[in-house]
Amino acid sequence: MRILILGGDGYLGWPLAMHFSGQGDDVAIVDNLIRRQVHIERGTDSLTPISPLLDRIVAWREVTGREIAAHVFDVSDYARLLALIEEFVPDTIVHLGEIPSAPYSMIDRDHAWKTQRNNVESTLNVIWAMHEVAPEAHLVKLGTMGEYGTPNIDIEEGYLEIEHNGRTDRLPFPKSPGSFYHLSKVHDSHNIQFACRIWGLRATDLNQGVVYGIHTDDTERDERLLTRFDYDELFGTALNRFCVEAVIGHPLTVYGKGHQTRGFLNIRDTLQCIELATRNPGPTGEMRVFNQFTQVFSVMDLASEVCAAASHLGYNTRIEHLENPRVELEEHYYNPTHTGLLELGLKPRMLSEELIETVLHTVERFKDRIRARGIDPATSWR
Amino acid sequence: MRILILGGDGYLGWPLAMHFSGQGDDVAIVDNLIRRQVHIERGTDSLTPISPLLDRIVAWREVTGREIAAHVFDVSDYARLLALIEEFVPDTIVHLGEIPSAPYSMIDRDHAWKTQRNNVESTLNVIWAMHEVAPEAHLVKLGTMGEYGTPNIDIEEGYLEIEHNGRTDRLPFPKSPGSFYHLSKVHDSHNIQFACRIWGLRATDLNQGVVYGIHTDDTERDERLLTRFDYDELFGTALNRFCVEAVIGHPLTVYGKGHQTRGFLNIRDTLQCIELATRNPGPTGEMRVFNQFTQVFSVMDLASEVCAAASHLGYNTRIEHLENPRVELEEHYYNPTHTGLLELGLKPRMLSEELIETVLHTVERFKDRIRARGIDPATSWR
Repeated sequence: MRILILGGDGYLGWPLAMHFSGQGDDVAIVDNLIRRQVHIERGTDSLTPISPLLDRIVAWREVTGREIAAHVFDVSDYARLLALIEEFVPDTIVHLGEIPSAPYSMIDRDHAWKTQRNNVESTLNVIWAMHEVAPEAHLVKLGTMGEYGTPNIDIEEGYLEIEHNGRTDRLPFPKSPGSFYHLSKVHDSHNIQFACRIWGLRATDLNQGVVYGIHTDDTERDERLLTRFDYDELFGTALNRFCVEAVIGHPLTVYGKGHQTRGFLNIRDTLQCIELATRNPGPTGEMRVFNQFTQVFSVMDLASEVCAAASHLGYNTRIEHLENPRVELEEHYYNPTHTGLLELGLKPRMLSEELIETVLHTVERFKDRIRARGIDPATSWR
Repeated sequence: MRILILGGDGYLGWPLAMHFSGQGDDVAIVDNLIRRQVHIERGTDSLTPISPLLDRIVAWREVTGREIAAHVFDVSDYARLLALIEEFVPDTIVHLGEIPSAPYSMIDRDHAWKTQRNNVESTLNVIWAMHEVAPEAHLVKLGTMGEYGTPNIDIEEGYLEIEHNGRTDRLPFPKSPGSFYHLSKVHDSHNIQFACRIWGLRATDLNQGVVYGIHTDDTERDERLLTRFDYDELFGTALNRFCVEAVIGHPLTVYGKGHQTRGFLNIRDTLQCIELATRNPGPTGEMRVFNQFTQVFSVMDLASEVCAAASHLGYNTRIEHLENPRVELEEHYYNPTHTGLLELGLKPRMLSEELIETVLHTVERFKDRIRARGIDPATSWR
């Protein structure tokens, strides 16, 4: 297949590009390198040393003999996006090209708007370009489980059968997201759903949980193929951050009570899920929605798992409850459905002590690169 | 009260500014004059000759001895908005400063993004500015009934009690809007609701129906105080357009079957509704939602009413069904609730033949200004 990956230089985008390319798919990447730039702005960095995008491409060619085409521009440049899609003729456009940080979007007005502008404009450009020059393509768009918030009812996959005053309809699941970043994804979902309905486009919206893990089959083939691994307050996800904290003797920082419960998945399963969605497009005229995670944990569950694994490696780790910088429920009902990807054949890798030990060992290897300053939360929702 | 009106040069904004000012409220206007500019771009214009904003201000002073402060800038300029709010210290911010046209937003990618950018950024700026310098102010934001679309269930006012698998929650009403413009208002609603929830702001979201009518008590006091009256394909609303068509002998242009059903209200009732919301703010920490219309009609109902009234004035009018440029259901269930504003004391003016005759007489008066070229739809949803 011809696969265009927007955001192909990112934590998930780069391993995904290799994953498809390694199977013989024709892969092109677009990225504006914004994550690298934000790290420069903040004085933080990936734990893993990551090669420049063009070096990654060269390394991949040397290791596999395969070509990944890389285009460095901002998807807000509609003319360039349109020209690329017209020339490349993708079967699938995987859109990961968004700013993915809740805290970043809450810093101030400028960061809130930068996030919503980047994300909403990029997705709007993608759907207009599809409408204009690639109406047969399949859009696979990364959303987030955070779009739903924590309602007091079961979370379904994108839509809900509602009975009200004796009448029924299947409507978009009502969403109550928890940051301007999460809101940007809700806006995207509404725009995409509309485009499918009126233009007959075909899209899959993947409401992804929190990803953990550091390696995929391809990142392990050559040091230059490593993907990024963020542990700072803006881009670090919980389990990854806990592993870094354990190794440097920093308490595991749990925000508030830690009973906040979310869906999680291994980075390898992210690749599997996106591949399943890509190889099995849904019907035209519809935005199909999958909830993309494999297990539900509370933040405390994860911290305890990391404590246990770290202890077996000889680390003496403790949990510290920080005042929660976010405005969120710390005790809530949480029961999201996630059957769609399992029905397509997803074989989940459950979280294991072995996985956590692998992450801990990788953190040990790059321990001298850790900048502890960036870990504790400086951004408050209030 | 100190009332800041964003979009105070518009069809509703200008009469509203006079309405409050006439009652002794301290009124300031912000407007970027975008509607006037788009008309220049398109070679169309308001039926009524409207004075420049600064002449309106002078005329109002001459007629009433009262001052309305006018600020011409774009609300996307956050620094200026912030400074103005900090200086003016509004009790209420009425936000009408959005691009209000569904067809305009469907012209192409640039118009879609211009609409979403203008609307979402302006509202985001307002809520951030309130958070920073005016947390006690009340935001009265103009939304649209078009946010809901036409679900097969009763439409409630903003929220819906949902029972699902034996559990219940009150969640935002699920929305399926019909254009990138309507989507921008859905995005706004989500952003405002979040801001109220996390920052304890106070807001009222007015999901307004289609407004008709040309005069308010104040616009009739002096020719220079007239409000605009649009009848072109982009900004004209159905009943207003039909009246212009009747007077120039153009068939009344109904899109498709005309069984599309919507909520409608008189421009005088718009002022009444916004005043009721302003004088009776809801609790802090909540986005209160009212559905702002007084009657439900199908497009054919309205066309027939205009035919009848025009016929009594001696016009021989016929209805022409155009191929529908929009993608929308032409036969659908429609039963929206609208009790909130009635409970606050709204006294609706129902649509009457007399009202239509008044509009027809005003159209006759300005007949030589009509540019028929701009009436028929040139913008398709497909």
